[in-house]
Amino acid sequence: MKAVGVVVEYNPFHNGHEYHLRQSKSQTGADLVVAVMSGNFLQRGEPALVSKWSRTKMALENGIDLVVELPYEYATQKAETFSNGAIAILDKLKCSYLCFGSEHGSIQSFNNTLNLIQKNSKRFNEIIRTEMKKGISYPMATSLAYHSLNPESAYINLSTPNNILGFHYLKAIDEQNSKMQPHTIQRTSANYHDEDFTSSTIASATSIRKALFEQNRNLFIVQDYIPHTTFKELEKYIETYGQLHRWEDYFNLLKYKVLTSSHEELSNIYEIEEGLEYRFKREIIGATSFNEFMENVKTKRYTRTRLQRACLHILTNSRKSVIKPDDNDWNKPTYIRLLGMSKIGQSYLRSIKKEIDIPLISKLSSFNQNRIQLDINATYTYSMVLPEAIRSQFIKEEFSTPPLRYDEDKEKYL
Amino acid sequence: MKAVGVVVEYNPFHNGHEYHLRQSKSQTGADLVVAVMSGNFLQRGEPALVSKWSRTKMALENGIDLVVELPYEYATQKAETFSNGAIAILDKLKCSYLCFGSEHGSIQSFNNTLNLIQKNSKRFNEIIRTEMKKGISYPMATSLAYHSLNPESAYINLSTPNNILGFHYLKAIDEQNSKMQPHTIQRTSANYHDEDFTSSTIASATSIRKALFEQNRNLFIVQDYIPHTTFKELEKYIETYGQLHRWEDYFNLLKYKVLTSSHEELSNIYEIEEGLEYRFKREIIGATSFNEFMENVKTKRYTRTRLQRACLHILTNSRKSVIKPDDNDWNKPTYIRLLGMSKIGQSYLRSIKKEIDIPLISKLSSFNQNRIQLDINATYTYSMVLPEAIRSQFIKEEFSTPPLRYDEDKEKYL
Repeated sequence: MKAVGVVVEYNPFHNGHEYHLRQSKSQTGADLVVAVMSGNFLQRGEPALVSKWSRTKMALENGIDLVVELPYEYATQKAETFSNGAIAILDKLKCSYLCFGSEHGSIQSFNNTLNLIQKNSKRFNEIIRTEMKKGISYPMATSLAYHSLNPESAYINLSTPNNILGFHYLKAIDEQNSKMQPHTIQRTSANYHDEDFTSSTIASATSIRKALFEQNRNLFIVQDYIPHTTFKELEKYIETYGQLHRWEDYFNLLKYKVLTSSHEELSNIYEIEEGLEYRFKREIIGATSFNEFMENVKTKRYTRTRLQRACLHILTNSRKSVIKPDDNDWNKPTYIRLLGMSKIGQSYLRSIKKEIDIPLISKLSSFNQNRIQLDINATYTYSMVLPEAIRSQFIKEEFSTPPLRYDEDKEKYL
Repeated sequence: MKAVGVVVEYNPFHNGHEYHLRQSKSQTGADLVVAVMSGNFLQRGEPALVSKWSRTKMALENGIDLVVELPYEYATQKAETFSNGAIAILDKLKCSYLCFGSEHGSIQSFNNTLNLIQKNSKRFNEIIRTEMKKGISYPMATSLAYHSLNPESAYINLSTPNNILGFHYLKAIDEQNSKMQPHTIQRTSANYHDEDFTSSTIASATSIRKALFEQNRNLFIVQDYIPHTTFKELEKYIETYGQLHRWEDYFNLLKYKVLTSSHEELSNIYEIEEGLEYRFKREIIGATSFNEFMENVKTKRYTRTRLQRACLHILTNSRKSVIKPDDNDWNKPTYIRLLGMSKIGQSYLRSIKKEIDIPLISKLSSFNQNRIQLDINATYTYSMVLPEAIRSQFIKEEFSTPPLRYDEDKEKYL
C-alpha cells in the first residue's frame, strides 16, 4: 500500500479540502491518505474553532485514512519549524508522497526556488539578518532576500502563505533526506478545474470562520462551502460545548497571566524576546479585547501572527526551557499521537508499525506525561472556556480516549 | 492627640464592628481610631466580599479616622505573621493603644497566657514540632502544647480565633518593644452590655456573607445586622460591579493556573510544601467547584484555611522568593499605604508624618512598583472576575486614586 501525506489544520474541513484530498489521491495514485493535523491550537497562534477530536471526525468522514497530531511544539510555529515537524512525522509514517496546496501549483518551480536559495544560502541568510536588524519582520526580510536573488517566472512567489509552506516542506524533505515525493495542487478558489466545484462552493476557512462569528454561529450561512459531515460536526460541537473557540474568549486568561507574571517569568516564555514582556504588561492593562491588545502591541518588527503565537505560548505556559530543549534536535519529533483511522488506515498502520522508531501513542494516559507536557497544557488551556461541568469530562477524555476508528464502508464509528 | 489602633477586615462592616469601634474609643479615651485593614484578600485566604475601597468607605462613614492597608504579605497569613505586620504598622503610626475584640475579654488573662508560654517557650515549641511531625495541623498542635502547660482559669482559651489573634498581638507588641497599650473587648453576640444592641442586631460577618450568597445577594435579609452605610455601599458595589466576590468565581483561574503550571513552578509558590503541588494538580482536574476541590485535598495535616491560603498564593502568583525574602525582616513592613482618612485622621497624620520611618504611599503610581508587587498582583487577580469593560477602570483607579478624604461633620467626601 502506498500512502500520500497531507499537512492540515481543517479549521474547519471545507469543500476546498475535499477537493485537495481527492486530487492528492488521483494525482499520486496512492491507496490512502495520511494527515498530520494541528491539535487544538494552530499555526497562526489561534485556537481551533472546534477540538482536534471533532476535526478528526471531519477528516475521517471525508476520506482521510489516518489522522495523527502535529505536536504543539511544531504546530504553533513559523513555517520552517512547522514544516520540519510535519514532514518528519509523515516520513516516519512511511508516506510515499506528499501533496500540498499552493498558490503556484507547479512542483518544478518550487524545486527551482529551493535550488536557487540553497545555492545562495549564505547571501540569502545574511540579507535576512541585515534587514531584520533594521526592525522589519522575518517574513518581510525573507521576501526582500529572495527578491535580491532575482527569481524569474520559473520560480515561485515566496510571499503567499501556501507557497511559503510548500517551500519549507520541500526544504525539509531535502534536509531530512526523506524519500517522499512532493506534489502540489494549485489553490484558486475562483476557477478550480474540477467542474463539480464552482466559486459558490469554495471559500477559505478564514472566510468561513469570519462568517460564523459575525452571524452568531449560524451554520446555514456557510453550508454551501462545507460538506454535510462538517455541518453536522459543527452543529454537534455547538450543542455539546456551547461554542466555537476563538481568541477573544481566552483574553481574560491571557490578561490574568500577563498581569500576575513577573517580567522575568514572561521572558522565560518561548517567543518572548527583546523586551516584549514589558510591552505586553504595559499594554494589556487598558486593552478591553484581544484584538485591541494586538493592535496596541504590533510593530513593524512583529507581525500579528508572530505576536499571537507569543500570546499563545504565554497562555499555555510554554517556556523556552521546555519547547526548545536542544536546537539540533529541532526536526526530530519524539512521539506520534494517533487521533483516528479508517479501516484502510488501520491496516496500513499495522503494516508499517514495526518500522516506526518513536512511540506511537494510542492512549495518552499510558504515555510519560512529562514528554508530552506541551500538548497536555494545550488541551488544558483550550478547555478553559468550556462550562465547568463539561470541562472535566473534556479533559478526562483527552487522557482516556483511544483513537477514533471509522468504518468507511458502513460510514460509522467502531 | 492620642490614637487607638484596631486591626480589621470589615468583610463587611457590621453592627458588631460599630460597637467595637465605639468601645475602643470610650475604654481608652482616645481622640481617634486608626484601622489597619486587609486589602482585597483576607486572612482566611479568601477574596473580600467587596474591594478595599468600598470597605474603606464603610470604615470612614462609621467613625474610623485613618485607614491603611495591611500588605498582602501579612494579610493572608497565619495569626502570628498577620499580627506581626499589623502591630508594626500601628506602632509606626504612633498609636497609643491597641483595642481588639476577643472571646475572653480580659487583658490580664492574655498577659498571663503570654507570660506562661514565654516562660516555657522551649518546651512549648518542642511539643508543637513533635505533634506536627505526627501529621496534625499547626493550630491543633499549638492547642495541645498550650494544654500541656496546664493553663487555669486565669488564662485564656487559646483555641478560639479572636483569642489566638489577640495573643499574637500581645506577643508582637512585646517582641517589637512597642509602647502600645493593649485593651480587649469581649465578643459575645448574644449579650452585649450596650443596651442599644440585642442579639437581633448582631451577627458575625461570616453569617452575613453566608446569608447574602444563599439569598442571591438580597441585602434586605441582612439589613438589621449592618449600618445603613454598609447597606448603601454593598448596594452600590453590586450595581457597579455586578457582584460580591467569592472563591467560587475564581476557581476557573485557579484551575487554569494549577493545570498549566509545572510541579516545579507550583513548588516555588509560597505555602506549597511537602508535595502539595502533586496533590493539587491531581485533584483539581476532576473538581467542578472550589469547595469540592478543598474537600478533596484537605487532610488532618492541613486545615482548610491553610489550603485556601496556598490556593490564594497560587492565584496571585506569590512566590517564595518574593513573599519571604528574608526571615529576619519578617515583622518589618517596608511601606504604609493610605486608603482613607477623616478630617481628624488627616490632622493626626500631619502631626506624626515626620516620625514615620518608612514610605507612606498616597498614590500607587508614584511608588516603586517592584516593592509593592504582591499588593498589585492581588488587585489584578481580584479584578479578574469583573466584566472586561469595568475591570480596566478598576485597575486604573488602583494606581491613580488618592486616599479617600471624608468630612465626618458634613458626612461627605472631599
